[in-house]
Amino acid sequence: MNAPISVDRSKLHSLQNPDLVEWVRARGMGGRVGFGNKPALVLIDVGAGWLDEKFLQGSSQPGVLESIVALLESARQNDVPRFFTTMGFQPNLSDCGDVWESKFRQLAKSHIIGSPEMTLHPALQHRDDEVLMVKPRQSGFFGTPLASHLILHQVDTIVVVGLSTSGCVRSTCEDGFNHNYRVIVPQEAVGDRTPTGHESALFDIDCRFGDVSTTQAALAAFTAFGDSR
Amino acid sequence: MNAPISVDRSKLHSLQNPDLVEWVRARGMGGRVGFGNKPALVLIDVGAGWLDEKFLQGSSQPGVLESIVALLESARQNDVPRFFTTMGFQPNLSDCGDVWESKFRQLAKSHIIGSPEMTLHPALQHRDDEVLMVKPRQSGFFGTPLASHLILHQVDTIVVVGLSTSGCVRSTCEDGFNHNYRVIVPQEAVGDRTPTGHESALFDIDCRFGDVSTTQAALAAFTAFGDSR
Amino acid sequence: MNAPISVDRSKLHSLQNPDLVEWVRARGMGGRVGFGNKPALVLIDVGAGWLDEKFLQGSSQPGVLESIVALLESARQNDVPRFFTTMGFQPNLSDCGDVWESKFRQLAKSHIIGSPEMTLHPALQHRDDEVLMVKPRQSGFFGTPLASHLILHQVDTIVVVGLSTSGCVRSTCEDGFNHNYRVIVPQEAVGDRTPTGHESALFDIDCRFGDVSTTQAALAAFTAFGDSR
Amino acid sequence: MNAPISVDRSKLHSLQNPDLVEWVRARGMGGRVGFGNKPALVLIDVGAGWLDEKFLQGSSQPGVLESIVALLESARQNDVPRFFTTMGFQPNLSDCGDVWESKFRQLAKSHIIGSPEMTLHPALQHRDDEVLMVKPRQSGFFGTPLASHLILHQVDTIVVVGLSTSGCVRSTCEDGFNHNYRVIVPQEAVGDRTPTGHESALFDIDCRFGDVSTTQAALAAFTAFGDSR
Repeated sequence: MNAPISVDRSKLHSLQNPDLVEWVRARGMGGRVGFGNKPALVLIDVGAGWLDEKFLQGSSQPGVLESIVALLESARQNDVPRFFTTMGFQPNLSDCGDVWESKFRQLAKSHIIGSPEMTLHPALQHRDDEVLMVKPRQSGFFGTPLASHLILHQVDTIVVVGLSTSGCVRSTCEDGFNHNYRVIVPQEAVGDRTPTGHESALFDIDCRFGDVSTTQAALAAFTAFGDSR
Repeated sequence: MNAPISVDRSKLHSLQNPDLVEWVRARGMGGRVGFGNKPALVLIDVGAGWLDEKFLQGSSQPGVLESIVALLESARQNDVPRFFTTMGFQPNLSDCGDVWESKFRQLAKSHIIGSPEMTLHPALQHRDDEVLMVKPRQSGFFGTPLASHLILHQVDTIVVVGLSTSGCVRSTCEDGFNHNYRVIVPQEAVGDRTPTGHESALFDIDCRFGDVSTTQAALAAFTAFGDSR
Repeated sequence: MNAPISVDRSKLHSLQNPDLVEWVRARGMGGRVGFGNKPALVLIDVGAGWLDEKFLQGSSQPGVLESIVALLESARQNDVPRFFTTMGFQPNLSDCGDVWESKFRQLAKSHIIGSPEMTLHPALQHRDDEVLMVKPRQSGFFGTPLASHLILHQVDTIVVVGLSTSGCVRSTCEDGFNHNYRVIVPQEAVGDRTPTGHESALFDIDCRFGDVSTTQAALAAFTAFGDSR
Repeated sequence: MNAPISVDRSKLHSLQNPDLVEWVRARGMGGRVGFGNKPALVLIDVGAGWLDEKFLQGSSQPGVLESIVALLESARQNDVPRFFTTMGFQPNLSDCGDVWESKFRQLAKSHIIGSPEMTLHPALQHRDDEVLMVKPRQSGFFGTPLASHLILHQVDTIVVVGLSTSGCVRSTCEDGFNHNYRVIVPQEAVGDRTPTGHESALFDIDCRFGDVSTTQAALAAFTAFGDSR
């Protein structure tokens, strides 16, 4: 049907690999979903455990927290609903389970509810009227009522930020897409342990689940929403 | 906490990049879950649309179908339950929706229920007593009763095969892990449009969701299960 | 805290038992959710198997089909999205399972996909552009993408009609409430095998999940929605 | 197909109405699912708010707590896994939502996480190694990872106890049935605000979702499981 396009296997799985981007777009993937009429901001796992490189699951991209805070403040000013997640198990890991522990091994001990790693970064200044969910897995939708909250607020677009791009962010984007939300990822506001994980996840998200965009575009959309009310 | 290990950003996001594998394992990810006591075989989207490179979403790895058929025959011989998926929308795409269509564009037209692309490959010789689910999204669990079927059969391990590694296979592995199934991916029995997509997905699966293993190991596990009955 | 109110156990579990209604309202249940801004019509299992008393699971209330058709026609005229369900398993019941079969026994044989019992009643004149889902259980949300469809259409209110009140209708109302939809049940447009099942389910729905209302009120809401566009 | 059987509408929707029981069984419902090989005990909302009649949602059946404690102790002795739920929202109800509040009105204020109403009864002596989930709705499965926990433990049977029969117990039974668990309800170990609610729910559960059984039968099954190990 379509002529095969050769993709060099030594090239990166990245949006910064123009041959690959052209190739998947020629294959019908990676269209734009765009912003809808009613956005929400979904903040995934913005705690020290993921933000600070000194922790096992810590990220390393600079400027991520600053971008997140800028989006959060704009969301508050423009009445865009905000939903926060973190992770965490009981101190004795009774609710973790052998399967999770076998795959993530010593990481289980750094996923304890209420630990410094799992606590929202103080720069977020989390407010009592903003929903915070402790999720048991990567996706913000799995084992939580996130979908119910989004439905209540008549949201059609979710701007997903936080950590890690290749883990909880990517998973939340996929489940958001599955539920028919327009998913937007401001690329400066997500981070990962490794550059290759970050870039391959952004590529997959952009091809399959949502639009990899910029913090600036998301800020503009929040302002436009605020002005329209 | 742990000394930073430098990862070269020009390196592949792949299990074939030993530096990266060592790095994530040092970070606590990528442990083994292993086979449990009761496996099932989950066959994701083994239709011409994904197997045959002439279609837009077609794959290109050689030998994938042969590995799948070998696993399927062994599963049948050893009373390992089998669950098949395909995708598909109505011919007028009434059940597809703007969000899916915006992201996958012309691919929607090649995801019609009952079309050649969406029909199981004849080599599978699908039997009437094997459950086949038409899923609306990538994950075999989303919008289907797959979890209920696995529970009925008291499964603790799912061997996931089919297409595409970076799409429906990866998503099904994640949801299987979320449900606490031991996920095993025989690497010769999954395929993708692009080598970079294939390899980055195998890396992510092995780090986060299940064990990337071999067809031979899965065949041995099926035989061991059959012998134990 | 509140003085105990005596409820006669010989009385019916019904909205037509004023003592009981007063009692649960004094206990804080049974408030009104009302219509929101964007309704959808959800038509549960309007097939001969449930409509026609000659079938095992057949209902007996008169006028149900007429009310459903009136609501459906109004929904079409006023651009209210419609979602249909039916049930059904494969002819060999491979996708039914021991647990379902043990509880519903000979009924399994009358739940075959495409059988007269499971086919939408011709009076509905189901259109190709109206989503029809084959659900595996009572709730329209379980094992189906109904929530995704409602999200796509930015619905905030679901008007639930069909059969049976105490089974699939009640279950769909509960899951709709769980997802934060405003649930409305026009009481003339739902039916059940038994009067006691019908009435006890309407009571529970009105206390817990949504407002038991009238066909006339729902028709007025559809017209108001149509006029507002 | 089958001759209509007249059911007197003045009769109760109850297992204690033999005409109705005969009628639904003749219609193919209400078969036995029985105990399987691996049970779990699911304890729904055993807190003062539901146990103590002085609270708005309080129950009134005597002996419920004693039956629950007996089953819990037996489960512990016989290595039957136990899963607890309670409900609860934030003190400012930020995670409750208009729809829930509209339907349950002043009850929202008595569903605050950590309040005396929502705290497990001390007689349960909840242990740190027993999973406790705070659910946002009636069903123990909605918005929680209960299914994942049951899968991890390879459970095939759930014994559901707690409060209220017509609310959270019935809903959990339905979702358990949906997931293909064998559901058993020891009738002395569930309670409700009203006798009519209790009885109509037991009737519906027994017809549709699981077996209404006795505490004695469940104790015997737990002992048999313990002996078999």
